[in-house]
Amino acid sequence: MAKYEILAEQIKTQIDSGVWMEHDKLPSLRKKSAQSGYSLMTVLHAYQILESQGYISSQERSGYIVTAKPQSGAGNLVQTAEAVSINDFVFEVLQASKDPHMLSLGFAYPDPSLYPRQHLNKSVAAAARQISLTSALDNLPPGNADLRKLIAKRYAARGISIAPDEIVITAGALEALSLSLQACTQPGDWVVVETPTFYGCLQALERLGLKAISIKVSPTTGLDPAALERAIQSRPVKACWLMSNFQNPVGYSLSEQKKKQIAGLLDKYQIALIEDDVYAELYSGSTAPLPIKHYRKQGNNMLCSSFSKSLVAGFRIGWVAAGNRALDIQKQQLMSTFETSAPIQLSLVDYLSTKNYELHLKQLRKKLVARKKAMHDFLSDLLADIATVHSHEGGYFLWVECHPHVEVMDIYYEALRLKVTIAPGKLFSLNNEFSHCFRVNASFALNDAKKNQLIKLADFLRRTTPNKTTSVL
Amino acid sequence: MAKYEILAEQIKTQIDSGVWMEHDKLPSLRKKSAQSGYSLMTVLHAYQILESQGYISSQERSGYIVTAKPQSGAGNLVQTAEAVSINDFVFEVLQASKDPHMLSLGFAYPDPSLYPRQHLNKSVAAAARQISLTSALDNLPPGNADLRKLIAKRYAARGISIAPDEIVITAGALEALSLSLQACTQPGDWVVVETPTFYGCLQALERLGLKAISIKVSPTTGLDPAALERAIQSRPVKACWLMSNFQNPVGYSLSEQKKKQIAGLLDKYQIALIEDDVYAELYSGSTAPLPIKHYRKQGNNMLCSSFSKSLVAGFRIGWVAAGNRALDIQKQQLMSTFETSAPIQLSLVDYLSTKNYELHLKQLRKKLVARKKAMHDFLSDLLADIATVHSHEGGYFLWVECHPHVEVMDIYYEALRLKVTIAPGKLFSLNNEFSHCFRVNASFALNDAKKNQLIKLADFLRRTTPNKTTSVL
Repeated sequence: MAKYEILAEQIKTQIDSGVWMEHDKLPSLRKKSAQSGYSLMTVLHAYQILESQGYISSQERSGYIVTAKPQSGAGNLVQTAEAVSINDFVFEVLQASKDPHMLSLGFAYPDPSLYPRQHLNKSVAAAARQISLTSALDNLPPGNADLRKLIAKRYAARGISIAPDEIVITAGALEALSLSLQACTQPGDWVVVETPTFYGCLQALERLGLKAISIKVSPTTGLDPAALERAIQSRPVKACWLMSNFQNPVGYSLSEQKKKQIAGLLDKYQIALIEDDVYAELYSGSTAPLPIKHYRKQGNNMLCSSFSKSLVAGFRIGWVAAGNRALDIQKQQLMSTFETSAPIQLSLVDYLSTKNYELHLKQLRKKLVARKKAMHDFLSDLLADIATVHSHEGGYFLWVECHPHVEVMDIYYEALRLKVTIAPGKLFSLNNEFSHCFRVNASFALNDAKKNQLIKLADFLRRTTPNKTTSVL
Repeated sequence: MAKYEILAEQIKTQIDSGVWMEHDKLPSLRKKSAQSGYSLMTVLHAYQILESQGYISSQERSGYIVTAKPQSGAGNLVQTAEAVSINDFVFEVLQASKDPHMLSLGFAYPDPSLYPRQHLNKSVAAAARQISLTSALDNLPPGNADLRKLIAKRYAARGISIAPDEIVITAGALEALSLSLQACTQPGDWVVVETPTFYGCLQALERLGLKAISIKVSPTTGLDPAALERAIQSRPVKACWLMSNFQNPVGYSLSEQKKKQIAGLLDKYQIALIEDDVYAELYSGSTAPLPIKHYRKQGNNMLCSSFSKSLVAGFRIGWVAAGNRALDIQKQQLMSTFETSAPIQLSLVDYLSTKNYELHLKQLRKKLVARKKAMHDFLSDLLADIATVHSHEGGYFLWVECHPHVEVMDIYYEALRLKVTIAPGKLFSLNNEFSHCFRVNASFALNDAKKNQLIKLADFLRRTTPNKTTSVL
């Protein structure tokens, strides 16, 4: 691509993602040239292309004005109707996943047989013996002191300095994320989010009356720091809600360089960072990736996580490493769940005090790598002519991108008939821009019966996919 | 009092509590006479009194207009600053209560030594043996099926028909109440609440952007159904949040007749009812009092409760019997805590399947009656000349009303120095109208040391109380 084409593409992406809104004035040729380092001629060329494509129009004396609407509904208040419909659909997927005969590839939890049930049960029993007169008080916000120390130790082992006093124990990561967002925003504030993103993020924004700028991420390289800076420059952004490791639903992890760039930007513009780090322990290499928080100089960071993806589902225990916001979070918690279940906190103290967690994680990581590879290889072969199966290092999600004209909701309902769930793209954005994508939980072991289910599903998908020779653009 | 004086007093209360707001037009003499059953002359007299006292003014052609502002800030959006300051203060009281040497009369939980710790620990251990591969799924919203059956059975024993399918298990009653409010309102809706009321109610209203009509309750007879009807008539009320049994903080229970009247009103005006029934098991007579829900013909009721006050604190397990709203509540829960801790649900199933709960409750009720009587007798004697100690049947709260000029916050800080907490009236309303009152948790056994602490506190209170001969009105 020529330079002016690259620049035009950049600006198009900005318009699509709502960095520039309809009726906004673009920077003058001179200013844009100075900002971007491109020559005046290159900028003019780029603007002319955009004008010819209907994105902008030149207006006498006012320069170039944006005429296209953002594609992602960004910049509006999160659309309530859409958020409600996503919530209804999440509920539907969840109900379907309760069926023990269902192959729950749409579920966010790993295969429960991967959890160390025996050891955990022992720890619950041990906790039962420890519950005392003062347990209810000892485990009040910010939560059990021993548990917070154990979590801080794990961070220290990853090279992250977090004091136990910065940690608040919550009823799962979802509560941690939602309290964090409450602690650093007021209704009407602007928050940057990824798209596609975890549906819980969209729901939290809607419930708190926040305005979203969605930045579309690449299914291969993830979030672009330059796009983030443009978003920040375009609006008075209060907070960013990001997943830098094993992003849900796409699965990418940001490179160290990108994390540093993002940290630098957030410092420069003094923006709060909410990081969802729930898959952090499920790396495939030799060390855990670091969160963006680690690279920040400022303290306005809320790093949220839980044990639900790495140790046990259904215990509902998470935390936020909230730095100087720890007190704010505790106060928010009083209005939410008041405190986190004492026996559950004590069970985790017992379990984490042993070496079992480390041993379990080593096995789990190995199994997940193997299972994800098997699922990826199988699906890639199966769908080679009709879809792209994106796979990244670590975690257990695959992101499947079908032909743009495929309506994945149809695939979802066919899958249900075949006793399989998938997580349709609809769940992960507010404007259904990923209606041709779905997320696959690759933590389940494949056998012939499961393969047959997936072969049947692929047949259906193939029948609904337009002929390859059909132009889609 | 003459009839016109009674009527004038009624209208004054309505103005004070925001049923009539500044600039509102009162009903014409003729209309008021028809509505109230009083003669035209009586209504005219009452209006004239109100005018002479500055509450209303007669305006040519427009009749009588309210000139006074409500005392309670009612009718406004819940005042954020005040709600935040209450939250900060709740946090402060809670932190103080963590000190094991503190006599926590300001705490809402009963003396933890009254809980059946041994039996409960056994049940937690039993649950640990039962956690299985599918536990996380079995305990997803609406919650464990066996637990919902056991709760429904307990309602049946009280003569209340609730099907297990109407029940949703939550992370404590606070989550149940907050989800209920979310399920039946939109931001900006009007909600009737008592004043004084549980601070969690005020915080939930603020967080959800709801408008409150506060009805001042009598410390002896509680909520007046007539005041409720006037409130309902004055605004498009969407929901009522009430405690009809062992009200927090005052302690009264409504008579059966009043409950029937309120149920009839809510049916007539088709209003959702959120009932906080967390103290229901702590009755002092032979049978549990019934909730207002029991008397309603319509299904728009959310009866919330938990085990925190009757069985164990710190487990964080509650529920809402939500009738036809059960599905809405489950969907709200997905955005809040997702599900309630599985081991905790299983522990409760184990415990409630035995006869231990019934035996425990019998002992607990007996002990609470004795302890509350002892605390009431002691405080009544101690404060005879300076305060009224309101006590009601059941529960474990006393409501102490000091001289109107006493600033209970001063008493609170002196109490802290004496290693006692109390719950100042400030916690229970948005406009500090109960700044001369405080709530006492009477579940603790008195001994000489504790009596000495209270004697010292009473001395301090006496020193800050204006001379009895001083007129306060």
